Order: sequence, then C-alpha cells, then structure tokens
Amino acid sequence: MTAPSLAPLALEIINGINEKDTRALSKAITLLESKDNLKKTIGMQVLVNLKKHNQNLSRKIAFTGSPGAGKSTLIEAIGLHLLTEGYNVAVLTIDPSSPISGGSILADKTRMQRLSNKERAFIRPSASGKGYLGGITPTTLDVIEIVETAGYDFILIETIGVGQNEIDIKDLVDKLILVLPPTAGDELQGLKKGITEVVDLILINKNDGMLKSAAELTAMQYESALNIFPAHKTDVKLCSAIEATGIVEVCMFIKDFTINTQERQQKLGQLLDRIASQELLQTLMKDETIKQLIYQQKTAILTQKESLTNAIETLIIYLTSCLKGKKTP
Amino acid sequence: MTAPSLAPLALEIINGINEKDTRALSKAITLLESKDNLKKTIGMQVLVNLKKHNQNLSRKIAFTGSPGAGKSTLIEAIGLHLLTEGYNVAVLTIDPSSPISGGSILADKTRMQRLSNKERAFIRPSASGKGYLGGITPTTLDVIEIVETAGYDFILIETIGVGQNEIDIKDLVDKLILVLPPTAGDELQGLKKGITEVVDLILINKNDGMLKSAAELTAMQYESALNIFPAHKTDVKLCSAIEATGIVEVCMFIKDFTINTQERQQKLGQLLDRIASQELLQTLMKDETIKQLIYQQKTAILTQKESLTNAIETLIIYLTSCLKGKKTP
Repeated sequence: MTAPSLAPLALEIINGINEKDTRALSKAITLLESKDNLKKTIGMQVLVNLKKHNQNLSRKIAFTGSPGAGKSTLIEAIGLHLLTEGYNVAVLTIDPSSPISGGSILADKTRMQRLSNKERAFIRPSASGKGYLGGITPTTLDVIEIVETAGYDFILIETIGVGQNEIDIKDLVDKLILVLPPTAGDELQGLKKGITEVVDLILINKNDGMLKSAAELTAMQYESALNIFPAHKTDVKLCSAIEATGIVEVCMFIKDFTINTQERQQKLGQLLDRIASQELLQTLMKDETIKQLIYQQKTAILTQKESLTNAIETLIIYLTSCLKGKKTP
Repeated sequence: MTAPSLAPLALEIINGINEKDTRALSKAITLLESKDNLKKTIGMQVLVNLKKHNQNLSRKIAFTGSPGAGKSTLIEAIGLHLLTEGYNVAVLTIDPSSPISGGSILADKTRMQRLSNKERAFIRPSASGKGYLGGITPTTLDVIEIVETAGYDFILIETIGVGQNEIDIKDLVDKLILVLPPTAGDELQGLKKGITEVVDLILINKNDGMLKSAAELTAMQYESALNIFPAHKTDVKLCSAIEATGIVEVCMFIKDFTINTQERQQKLGQLLDRIASQELLQTLMKDETIKQLIYQQKTAILTQKESLTNAIETLIIYLTSCLKGKKTP
C-alpha cells in the first residue's frame, strides 16, 4: 500500500483511518485544509492513497436553509436515529458565506453533543476554504471524498449561510434537503429565489408545541405553490427535531434510493468543469494587465467612445497572444 | 461630424440615419452583424459616431415567454397603439437559441405586416450573432444602441426561444415582460425555473374567445403563487392581442416610468463585466493546450488517481505562466 514517496506521517494517518480511528481522519482533514504547502501535500498523499484502495460509497445528503431553521438539531436527531439502525454517520459543515475561516469556526461538536459522544459518529466543522464563488472549494470536495473513503454509511452535510451555492452542492451529494422553520403565511421572504426548484425535499421543521399549526400551514402553502409547477417533483414533509417526530420518515427518504455511480460520475464531471472554469477565470481576473484592460474598455463603452464588439475584441486579442506566446517561447 | 478616417459609406449611412431613413438604419445593422471584418468596421464607425452626437433615450422593453404565447401579435398590437399616441417604435428580435443565423431568419416583417407598413415604425428581425452563452452577443448590444441613437421612443424586443438568457436581457432593457398563453391549471410545465422572479410583469395573453376563462384562471394561479413570495413585486395582467383588450394597460405600464440613466449605467456595467468574463473564458476554453490539460486532470480525478486541489493547481500554474510569459517576453 505504501508508495515509495509516501511521507511517514501520511502512512501513519492512512493506517489510522483504515483502523477506524477518527482522530486520524480529523488529522487528515486538517492537513487537507491547511494553507501550509507541505502539510497540504501530505494530506493529498493520504487522500490519493485511500482513494486507490477503498471503494466505499457513502450516502451523501446535504441540508440547506435559512439560519434559525434548526438544521443542526435536526441533523443530530437524524444522525442519532441512523446510529440506532446500525449505520455509522459523519457530519460535515460547509460554510460558503465565511471565506475567512480556514479552521473550525463553528463549535459543532458543542452543538451536537449527544451525537459527538457516540462511537460510530464523526463530526467535523469543516471550513469553507478560500471562498470560491459558489461556496464549494476544491478542498470541500477533497474533504468529502476522504470521509467517504473512511467508510461511513452516511455523510450528512450542513450548509451554513445563504449563498448561491445550492447548485454546486447538489452536484456533490445524492439528495439536497431544504429545511425551513414554520412561518406566518405571508412571510416567506428570506427564501432564496429558485431554491425550491433545485432541492429534493422541503422539510418544515419545528412542527411542535405552539408552532404546530403554523408548520402545517407553511407545509400546505409550499405544497400548493409547488403544485403549480408539476415539473418539479419536490416533496414537502413536516418534522420536529426536538419532539423527534417525522425523523423516521426523513431517514426513510435518505435511505430509500440506490446510489447511482454513473449519475455521480456525471454530476462530478459537470462540477469539475464548472470549478475548473471558475478557477481559471479567477486567475485571469486577478491578472493586473487584464484588470486594467477591462477597466479601460468598460470606461470607453460607458462614455460612448467605443462599441462593445471592439472592446471585447481587444480583450480577446490580448488573451490569445498570452496563450500563443506560451506555446512558441 | 466626420472624423478624418470615416469611410464614405459610413458617412452616407450616418447622414441617412440622422434624416430618419430606415433603410440607412437597416444597412447599419447589417454591417454591424456582418462576419466580414471590413463591413463590421464600417458598422462600428457608424455606431461610435452616432453615439457621440445623439443622446436619445429609448424606452427599452423586452418580451420573453414560450413559443405559442403570441408574442409577435402582441408586440404588433402594442406598437400600433403607441403609434396612435404619436410615438415612434422600433421592434427587434433576439434569437438566442439560434446561433446559426447571421441573417434575417425570421420573417418578422411578414408576421407584423400592419406595423411594418407604418412610417414611424422600424422592424428588424435581428440575428443572435455568434451564439454567446447567455444569448446576448456584443452585437446584440451594438444593434440596440444604434437603434436608440436613431431616435426611437420605444424599442420593443422580442426574444425567441427559451434560453437561459433572461438575466442578461434584463440588464439590456428597462422592463422585461413574460408573455404566457392560458393553460389548463396544472400544465404550466413549459415555464422555465425562476423566470417569474426576474420579470417585471406577467402577461397572460389570448384572454379572448373560448380561452377567456382559462386565461383568467391562469392569471389567478400566478397571482396566488406569487403571493407566497412577497419579495417579488411582479404584477400579473390579462390581455388579448387579437381582440385588443388590455393593450392600453400594457402601454401604460411601459410608458409609466422615468428612465433612470444611473441605473442603466449600473446594469450595463454589470452586463459588460459578465460579457467580458464569458468571452475571455470562451477564448480560454477554445485553447487546445488548456482543453487537453482539463481533460487530463478530469480523467485523473474521476479514475481516483488525483485530488481536485492538485488538479486545479496544475491548471492555474499553466495559465499563470501564460499570462506572465506575455509580460516578460
């Protein structure tokens, strides 16, 4: 298993992960997320090596929704239920709205105390990395992959913040669930445009105590709104994380499908294309000469001095000359 | 007015347009849309020169919606009404789904016969250009601008096909109107996701004859669906292009606002940034070496041989070296 160039630390971590040592897995993720190149390289060695030898498939489920919907408590309840059924469960957090992090800014372990005490559970408040446009960084994917190779049956992913990243997240997971709190009928304003159309399930949480009738009304309203667009087969369900109602049904929903590896490959391929494009574009837009050129051309158009076609032509000619210059040095 | 380098043909066309000669305007658009570089350059001269001297502001209204909604007939009815009120009107067609064109593929003049016979109307079945991602090409913007400089009070833009381009079109115009045919309640499937949320008005057309009650029901359903999201202040109106009902109200809607040049500049700036990004990205993705690199890295990830972070790093390093190579030749 050990490639000749494998660092001793990498080997130690690989062995640890293969022996189901969660501290080794934690360590690997820390390395992957590190801004230190050497550490990151060791993390990569661990990941690439594990990928070669471990073909485990985790069911990957992401939870999105506004703050205050009770996602953490819900995920904990779902995790605990899955444990009682004999599965092992990993919980990851993606925080696309917080590019500053780079470490564990969210005390998830404190928030999900009951779950984190369990042996077959792994909880990791993963960072968002370097703030890539869509919220998904190359590191995000690497972290999810390493957890999958560690052999978890379920990876539950909590997304924090309301970014424009649901479409990217959708491509990383098998199911995307929108968690919403009950609302007073006409107050669904916090909801992001189009979000109801990319999720696989809408879950009205906090269907408990004094909120019960509001929750039922909210669910009904979503159902009738969704009925107008029959093309989207999004289900609406009610649950209560604190009273533990509806949790069994949600667990059914996230168990009751066959993992389609071909579909996964296809979605991953699409995501890779998007990430590659975005990363290349970001590199381009950071270039001082290109920034200056765009600024000049934009000013020329807005001050009525230039046509858009000419302006774009100027940009393309410059970039083409850069790319060609490289080829014939 | 004549710059020293101005081609005689450009000068002739500029004079024609300033004298309200619609044939001169047509000729200018043909030049702008030409794939011949010399012709295109003359078109650009005309545009840039007109922009410098003519500060006319047209009200720009775009109409989108599924085929069969009756957009052309509706636009003709609106155009005819505006003419009776003393305005002059230009009608342009953007066909984002048809990158093949480059000429007048749609016989709009035949379709809008009553309007095209009028003196103060200009109808142009403009092409979509070279099939830029969002449906909007640099040429689209240039064509709209030259029509604006020609002094029309209204530019009505018909979009053909259902692309992903409404957001781009929204930035080119003052109002975006979604035109829909009456449907049998549960059959609004053709509707693109999220479209209702970017338009300024939803117009249920064909509110006439046997379709009247279906049209009313459709309007009600949209109203109730939109009520759930009070953040979107989209109005729903009924009209009939063939019975000419509701047309006055639509005309009120497209007249009753102040052109906000600051907002226009801002929207245009955003659009320019997007177009510049997209055009640069397209140039990048057409480069053989980059294409090959992406293919290699994608294969490495999908066959579990590489981590995403490493793959992206390889791409960025290559592009950076191209950009730097240019700077220090």
